[in-house]
Amino acid sequence: MSEQVYIGVDLGGTTVKVGICDSKGKLIQTHEGPTESEGGYEQVTDNITTYVKKIVEESTYSWENVHGIGAGIAGFVDKKGLVKRAANLGWENVHVKHILEEKIGKPVIVNNDANVAALGEVWSGAGEGVSDVICYTLGTGVGGGIIIENKIHQGFNGMAGEIGHMSVVPDLEAIQCGCGQKGCLETVSSATGIIRMAKDAVERGERTSLSLLETISAKDVFDAARVNDEVSIRIVKRAAYYLGRSMSMLAFVLNPQRFIVGGGVSKAGDILFDQIRENFEKFTPDAIKEGVDIVPATLGNDAGIVGAAGLNLFKI
Amino acid sequence: MSEQVYIGVDLGGTTVKVGICDSKGKLIQTHEGPTESEGGYEQVTDNITTYVKKIVEESTYSWENVHGIGAGIAGFVDKKGLVKRAANLGWENVHVKHILEEKIGKPVIVNNDANVAALGEVWSGAGEGVSDVICYTLGTGVGGGIIIENKIHQGFNGMAGEIGHMSVVPDLEAIQCGCGQKGCLETVSSATGIIRMAKDAVERGERTSLSLLETISAKDVFDAARVNDEVSIRIVKRAAYYLGRSMSMLAFVLNPQRFIVGGGVSKAGDILFDQIRENFEKFTPDAIKEGVDIVPATLGNDAGIVGAAGLNLFKI
Repeated sequence: MSEQVYIGVDLGGTTVKVGICDSKGKLIQTHEGPTESEGGYEQVTDNITTYVKKIVEESTYSWENVHGIGAGIAGFVDKKGLVKRAANLGWENVHVKHILEEKIGKPVIVNNDANVAALGEVWSGAGEGVSDVICYTLGTGVGGGIIIENKIHQGFNGMAGEIGHMSVVPDLEAIQCGCGQKGCLETVSSATGIIRMAKDAVERGERTSLSLLETISAKDVFDAARVNDEVSIRIVKRAAYYLGRSMSMLAFVLNPQRFIVGGGVSKAGDILFDQIRENFEKFTPDAIKEGVDIVPATLGNDAGIVGAAGLNLFKI
Repeated sequence: MSEQVYIGVDLGGTTVKVGICDSKGKLIQTHEGPTESEGGYEQVTDNITTYVKKIVEESTYSWENVHGIGAGIAGFVDKKGLVKRAANLGWENVHVKHILEEKIGKPVIVNNDANVAALGEVWSGAGEGVSDVICYTLGTGVGGGIIIENKIHQGFNGMAGEIGHMSVVPDLEAIQCGCGQKGCLETVSSATGIIRMAKDAVERGERTSLSLLETISAKDVFDAARVNDEVSIRIVKRAAYYLGRSMSMLAFVLNPQRFIVGGGVSKAGDILFDQIRENFEKFTPDAIKEGVDIVPATLGNDAGIVGAAGLNLFKI
């Protein structure tokens, strides 16, 4: 019998990444090309189709080996594969599932990129073998994916997993979030939030090595914290405090077995994870946290492709 | 073919209620008797066995019609039916599933009472036909049950659904909760929380009709609010505010289709529900709240028996 492989598409604002995975979620081959979002969804879906066909042609597999195609997209994707809104592509109400199926001539499953990355980690990354996982992606925002019994939990309108918009910061310290609420986790624990807190401290004239930098990145803040810059230590503590508290709250509600933290900010390593764990431990009773752990993602940028390929195996 | 019926056991601290449900979750017959928890788990499980056998004998059904037995218990129940702790029964680590199965001679499924009540509402109450529901039980505490795709979501340690312990009250106003945390939803939105806020107001000498009462119940506070007692209006608003906010937060995370609110406090009706809905609307974006509603439970005290019987139909 011929080998079964799965194709994953990670549709970004500037680049489309396509990959072939084996049935265990191992990424065998990749291909990438420009998104050309300025050409509209017709151009973008044409490009995806070309890249998908190309990767199969260039591989040792035939279309008979391909047991599914999946795509992850940054934006609001409903249960039927309709992209309600994708800001970085400038899309509104694009039925990308149907369009791709027509162009490629095969069934395609589409989902939100944070959900897909979570699925990737559960398939062959930091969540392998764990059925109930909550995945945080700490980047420009705080994305989330909830996996329950090996399936992405999408919710009634396909909007579940928006953990970056849990309101966790007390009103007095809360700042406005892009979502319209105040005090969202994303305002303090994303790269954007960390940079904002750093800039605020510099502007207030606080004594910090960050004031010597022309531009400040989240990495700069972690680096400064590591060499005992007090302002940076305070900022890292604050970001980690709310991450730990939000995990504690999710543990009361969903009691997952594992929290996986990925995205650019997660590369900070122990200085971040130690404090997330400390706060989680502090706020979560033993009966709930027993055996529950908080670990870094392991697939890095491949999580999107792998998870998209996995959409076909972990039926949703 | 003979009719299929299901037996549900609602094990309370003073009374055991047993019922027979048909395959649509309609309660056909009930029986109740004392728990006698002072006699220990041997006595209690003997009593349950007696009541279960009695209700079948007294019914028009035979044991062949009984397609399952389920029990709901207030306390921490793990996935294997082990009661880790049940304060009102004085139990610790009682393997009630095994004991009951041995005594009754039939398979028994055991779960937490709030989970079971949620399942009852989804089977034949306010959540009939809705697969993704979050159920609040507002009583002495705030209990919760999460139903995902018609199944109770138990979580890794069986501890999911503890929504009463979501930390929602800002630190400055937060009071200590029995769980060890501060600012839990339960501290402001349970009957206990409402009564505490009322007593505090009276003690502070605030001008309120509640000060004329010898003892204050949650119902007194709602009754006074209805006739424009300002202190009572403020207390009801606060309880409803945090309920609405917690639902908004759960909508971002789980995006359920329906929130069902039951328990003694929910009998307050519109004065409570209108404000819960108002706050939920305010804090939840359209894409998430579209088609989502907040409704009162309809099974009342029967939810526990019905849901326990349903444990056998909605496999967990």
